[in-house]
Amino acid sequence: MTPEQFRQHGHQLIDLIADYRQNIAQRPVMAQVEPGYLKAALPGAAPQQGEPFEAILQDVDQLLMPGLSHWQHPDFYGYFPSNGTLSSVLGDFLSTGLGVLGLSWQSSPALSELEETTLDWLRQLLGLSAQWSGVMQDTASSSTLVALICARERATDYALVRGGLQSQAKPLIVYVSAHAHSSVDKAALLAGFGRDNIRLIATDEQFAMRPDALREAIAQDLAVGNQPCAVVATTGTTATTALDPLRPVGEIAQAYQLWLHVDSAMAGSAMILPECRWMWDGIELADSVVVNAHKWLGVAFDCSIYYVRDPQHLIRVMSTNPSYLQSAVDGEVKNLRDWGIPLGRRFRALKLWFMLRCEGVEALQQRLRRDLDNAHWLAEQVQAAADWELLAPVPLQTLCIRHRPAGLAGAQLDAHTRSWADRLNASGDAYVTPATLQGEWMVRVSVGALPTEREHVQRLWERLQGVVLG
Amino acid sequence: MTPEQFRQHGHQLIDLIADYRQNIAQRPVMAQVEPGYLKAALPGAAPQQGEPFEAILQDVDQLLMPGLSHWQHPDFYGYFPSNGTLSSVLGDFLSTGLGVLGLSWQSSPALSELEETTLDWLRQLLGLSAQWSGVMQDTASSSTLVALICARERATDYALVRGGLQSQAKPLIVYVSAHAHSSVDKAALLAGFGRDNIRLIATDEQFAMRPDALREAIAQDLAVGNQPCAVVATTGTTATTALDPLRPVGEIAQAYQLWLHVDSAMAGSAMILPECRWMWDGIELADSVVVNAHKWLGVAFDCSIYYVRDPQHLIRVMSTNPSYLQSAVDGEVKNLRDWGIPLGRRFRALKLWFMLRCEGVEALQQRLRRDLDNAHWLAEQVQAAADWELLAPVPLQTLCIRHRPAGLAGAQLDAHTRSWADRLNASGDAYVTPATLQGEWMVRVSVGALPTEREHVQRLWERLQGVVLG
Ligand SMILES: Cc1ncc(COP(=O)(O)O)c(C=O)c1O
Ligand SMILES: Cc1ncc(COP(=O)(O)O)c(C=O)c1O
Repeated sequence: MTPEQFRQHGHQLIDLIADYRQNIAQRPVMAQVEPGYLKAALPGAAPQQGEPFEAILQDVDQLLMPGLSHWQHPDFYGYFPSNGTLSSVLGDFLSTGLGVLGLSWQSSPALSELEETTLDWLRQLLGLSAQWSGVMQDTASSSTLVALICARERATDYALVRGGLQSQAKPLIVYVSAHAHSSVDKAALLAGFGRDNIRLIATDEQFAMRPDALREAIAQDLAVGNQPCAVVATTGTTATTALDPLRPVGEIAQAYQLWLHVDSAMAGSAMILPECRWMWDGIELADSVVVNAHKWLGVAFDCSIYYVRDPQHLIRVMSTNPSYLQSAVDGEVKNLRDWGIPLGRRFRALKLWFMLRCEGVEALQQRLRRDLDNAHWLAEQVQAAADWELLAPVPLQTLCIRHRPAGLAGAQLDAHTRSWADRLNASGDAYVTPATLQGEWMVRVSVGALPTEREHVQRLWERLQGVVLG
Repeated sequence: MTPEQFRQHGHQLIDLIADYRQNIAQRPVMAQVEPGYLKAALPGAAPQQGEPFEAILQDVDQLLMPGLSHWQHPDFYGYFPSNGTLSSVLGDFLSTGLGVLGLSWQSSPALSELEETTLDWLRQLLGLSAQWSGVMQDTASSSTLVALICARERATDYALVRGGLQSQAKPLIVYVSAHAHSSVDKAALLAGFGRDNIRLIATDEQFAMRPDALREAIAQDLAVGNQPCAVVATTGTTATTALDPLRPVGEIAQAYQLWLHVDSAMAGSAMILPECRWMWDGIELADSVVVNAHKWLGVAFDCSIYYVRDPQHLIRVMSTNPSYLQSAVDGEVKNLRDWGIPLGRRFRALKLWFMLRCEGVEALQQRLRRDLDNAHWLAEQVQAAADWELLAPVPLQTLCIRHRPAGLAGAQLDAHTRSWADRLNASGDAYVTPATLQGEWMVRVSVGALPTEREHVQRLWERLQGVVLG
């Protein structure tokens, strides 16, 4: 494709995307297709000759669109929001269009420096002290893996340059809340700790980690000769947005010299609102924290921000320095390849920079406040309605709800819950996420897609009341 | 930003990118800025109010552009090519614009199915048997980390669900060529093996792994009670594009039940040319292979393809299955979160699909053949010229060259080499990569940027001859 053809087809594509976002409300939110539908519709091999762009656009419209669940839809309440603000979308377009790589500072200086600058802007917005340095990772899963590897290496005084985890005499132990995201468990397993060495700490009635239970688990491990290594606390758990109490947890971590990693993948966005900062009171006691800017905040996926207090340690764990990547300025610059797992790096900061500049901080704050208001309005309706229950506090914008008609319990209640949630999703009118809480099914309603206004939430409430009738 | 504003600014951005690609040859290839130049030029904090889009575009032009090294430039011969064909750029635009996520098949069915289909197309193009299944990762660094974790878990019969690597009695050993990419070493360290348990296998005079040396290293480890675990072979090493002999290496791996991971990050692209397939003769003996479609092949970064022969093993190592991600169809579909580290997943297959369909296979093959021809032409010039030497075979499109005037050797020769390479890069006329080979400096010239034609390579040769004169 020549630049002139790109110009022509690029304009077509911009219109397609603008139309898509403009008219998205007319589509069913959840894809209504059967497994294998697309594989069956596509040819078995790549074409030998190029095809006209129009043929591809036609397939996008007729084959792909029906197979999408629309995350940017005003009636999307699934999972957590993953907002792609259109300003950040344009920043990402520029990144892909330029096609430059940040293997080292020298391989495109602006790429590394804009990442440093914008992450410092974001640090200020989140209310983090100047002690923190940030880097962009793809996802919270990767950020947490990096954190646990760093914890492992601090606890072993860099065993990676010797016998690795294989030479570890006392088992290293990782502590997480029973409500931590599955990616935390996965990270601990991939880092080699082993499931036997992960302690699931009990939670209180608000689903937050109990510091006394943490302290006790540590004591038990010490008593049998294990080596406590790291604790992962979550602000904003996936099931209920529960808030692990960072200050007491952090004090325990400091007392026992454990690495404290904070998973704020979801709730981190809310920290741009000063009135929400109490939620991570104690954050300065942590060693690392992850905030997914690609969730509620609105930077187009993927953009997971990993902040650390000791970048020298991170670099020592992650650094590789082959001759072909060395340059004369290495002493003066950040080489971001030493801040995470991948070597290659796209110009990801552009999408954050575009969003912050186009929208401005106040508009972002306003949008998040709108969503908090909408969620609290819905929570009030649920609480006030007969036969409905709210199963967890709503500190943020996610509700855990259940419709519980008199007399229904146990497996019957579960069946009712799953059945109405599936009916709602299948209708295409709204997308919610069924999940279990303490072994029972409930429905998560996560408010905060970009175009979701009060009217949509009101309509959702009507639909919820309708759909439970069968 | 509203969809209407997006439409307007999107058109502006398309023109900016089309102009950039069209006129890129007029820019100096390598950025000519000092460390800190951009940080100093940008405000210290994010703006409270949104700014006009034009202000941002002006900063792109005046602040960012001078700080880019232009990877899509016809005079770019640095590192390895990282081509972003404009058709794949448009595919990526669509992905970002749609903003859908593949947390599970259900969360956007078309996303998972298009990835499966296009990776099967690519598998056929690479000449891999139907035994292989693929998944997109961000980079080869991540793919190789996944491979070594899978190797670790196969060797320990899934120790991750017990005591992890901490419960390992006999040290697990990883074998790599001394010329393997730094990401292989990094992956082994991050996976917990420890540097003491990485064996650097000697290479022959063509910088390829010596099977006899591999066999000997394994025998020595077995003799002292270690447990050989994995071997990583490279087709197309970073320094010289050397080709580790996969068939004998694979036979040894099979004999000792080692995991064989093949790093074809660079050379994998060449496998779409049947005449190049001899380079990975024996590939079917491997357990996993990585091919960076974002390098020479031309899919916009990031797009690293990881093929495995036993997806069930991969899934067992990587799988997490929280209730909120379960759906009724889980038995029938691929949930790609269980094929790698990240949970969240963008619609990455669009860029591969757009490229394959817009360009067609034959045009891709033609471009790669053009680059091979150009590289071989340049190799002939170097070999025929007095005082120039070619330091390694040129099976692909990367040359390792040196200008060695009579009498110059050792530190003086190194100084001469680095000095002319730096002068060439600083001139902005071409971008090459100095690197060491057997402890001496040489210059890598990697042909294969999208717009690089014979005339550019001819001009490079003239410039090389000029710049060494001082
Ligand atoms: C609290 C929490 N942590 C981590 C994750 C994983 O996110 P990612 O897809 O970025 O790995 C999620 C996903 O929703 C989450 O809610
Ligand atoms: C042979 C080889 N393997 C791996 C890599 C790492 O690539 P990535 O940036 O995708 O991790 C490179 C980079 O050039 C390479 O040449």
